[in-house]
Amino acid sequence: MDEFSLINQFFRRSPDAWKSISAGIAKGIGDDCAVLGVTDQQVVVSTDTMIAGRHFPDDCPGDVVASRALAAAASDLAAMGAGPLGFTLSLSMPRLDLHWCQTFADTLHEKAIRWQIPLIGGDTVKGPLNISITVLGLVPPGQALMRNGAKPGEDIWVSGWLGNAAGGLEVALAGDKRLTTAKKMLLSCYQAPVPRFDLGRRLLGVASSAIDISDGLLADWQHIADVSDVGAEIFSSQVPISKELTEVCGGHKALNYALAGGDDYELCFTAPQDLRSIILELSSDKMPLTRIGRVKSGQELSVIDGAGKRQDFQKTGFNHFG
Amino acid sequence: MDEFSLINQFFRRSPDAWKSISAGIAKGIGDDCAVLGVTDQQVVVSTDTMIAGRHFPDDCPGDVVASRALAAAASDLAAMGAGPLGFTLSLSMPRLDLHWCQTFADTLHEKAIRWQIPLIGGDTVKGPLNISITVLGLVPPGQALMRNGAKPGEDIWVSGWLGNAAGGLEVALAGDKRLTTAKKMLLSCYQAPVPRFDLGRRLLGVASSAIDISDGLLADWQHIADVSDVGAEIFSSQVPISKELTEVCGGHKALNYALAGGDDYELCFTAPQDLRSIILELSSDKMPLTRIGRVKSGQELSVIDGAGKRQDFQKTGFNHFG
Repeated sequence: MDEFSLINQFFRRSPDAWKSISAGIAKGIGDDCAVLGVTDQQVVVSTDTMIAGRHFPDDCPGDVVASRALAAAASDLAAMGAGPLGFTLSLSMPRLDLHWCQTFADTLHEKAIRWQIPLIGGDTVKGPLNISITVLGLVPPGQALMRNGAKPGEDIWVSGWLGNAAGGLEVALAGDKRLTTAKKMLLSCYQAPVPRFDLGRRLLGVASSAIDISDGLLADWQHIADVSDVGAEIFSSQVPISKELTEVCGGHKALNYALAGGDDYELCFTAPQDLRSIILELSSDKMPLTRIGRVKSGQELSVIDGAGKRQDFQKTGFNHFG
Repeated sequence: MDEFSLINQFFRRSPDAWKSISAGIAKGIGDDCAVLGVTDQQVVVSTDTMIAGRHFPDDCPGDVVASRALAAAASDLAAMGAGPLGFTLSLSMPRLDLHWCQTFADTLHEKAIRWQIPLIGGDTVKGPLNISITVLGLVPPGQALMRNGAKPGEDIWVSGWLGNAAGGLEVALAGDKRLTTAKKMLLSCYQAPVPRFDLGRRLLGVASSAIDISDGLLADWQHIADVSDVGAEIFSSQVPISKELTEVCGGHKALNYALAGGDDYELCFTAPQDLRSIILELSSDKMPLTRIGRVKSGQELSVIDGAGKRQDFQKTGFNHFG
């Protein structure tokens, strides 16, 4: 099978498959470039790469790789408050494993349709397993949620529960055959994260800054802090931790995962205090929004426990070449 | 050095460095996504991946890798008749080789500025050497040069000289220390190809179909033929071959390289016969435009020699997983 047959068999779906979600796609896969219609919007673009042995185990099934790779990339659109437009896929594979390809492609399409982000192009080559996805999205001009808008006195919020994906990775690595309900839930958070598109769009005009949590809360917050030139107090007792994570990992490790674990793809954002009630209206049982701290002037990041005592946490996150 | 320091040191240049070429870039590197302003244009996007040991030798210097990777990706914009908007870079490297990084980044920026296509984002990870570039460009609505517009009776044209890059690869692999002027010229065609942006834009409203020659003339022509549902006669004696290629490789191999060698990144396009004089006005000594054949009805691709005899050529090109 050559690369063109491979693209045709696995990655080019009939126009009907995309019809409901491809209003802006004048031309998708099959020419030198995809062609996109854009009216009165700004285009946002981001690239995210995952490689075997680094972001997932070498023997990771195709559906898990597809799900995590697309979610990780698409989550950057959510963090800008952008709606999805489309994505390109660069797929390097060491050999043609038809079963792996099929589960990868099927899940990629399932998620793409669920998240309304059509596959519009890409490249397949033979080489060490490497999945690089470039997502494109649209935002109303001038309204994208940037990292540089946090101001002292504002609240710091997060969506969902933090640390579940790190707990799920632990479950995946342990390799138990029979899993408790709690472990299954954590595993699913790691294997099939969900970009917060709806939340991102609803935060336009509300949040003053936003980022998605891919490398861990403290590490990702620091990106906002650096470019906004601010510090923060994070109240560790207010950080949302699921009962499943506590059940599986215990309270101490659960807090560590919530503060420094990666791969949750929840949003962390800042907003003025007088918008609290508006933000709480966006909160739900399935996706709680929780105030976890306050933006401060200066550069310090303090993590404060329930007794008001400062905790010593490294601003650690996942760093390549670190 | 962590990945963020690496990005800062090598890939984030001061806004001034991009100022002259970044009119549409509201936000480049440094947030979850880049943000692009688009007015009354369509956005085109394409992804191209190169990996060590497959697209270039493992010990290929950083400047050559950067030059070829950006040209290969940007050439897809030229083949659509699009103007450049920006690109993202996914860079996977096995270790932090500062000298390699510096030559890679310097050349990437030099070419980006020359071709007016700013680096707007990306991802760096640790892993086998893999460079994936996603380019974005702009075309007037509805005018992009697609592959599906070739019609029987039209002329088939190519830009430049074909086969030089394949000859240059042969020179590179031979590893001679002292090169003749002809070998130097071929090597430069392979190591530092130039996307035909100007030509692509001038062909808007003129060419009925276009593609860039990355996998070899016959193989790339076949992509046009497949989606346009046409055949062709290619006159091999009219295919433009440089005297340097003939000097270094001899006439027989030179023709083979011209018909089936890859990496030239010249444009192949079709146009009605009554536009010949308009097209010849775009031709110059530095970039000749040459009529090499005719679009036919049916599906057959015939290569015809100077004596009018049909030659037996495989429609071969570079195929991954082939």
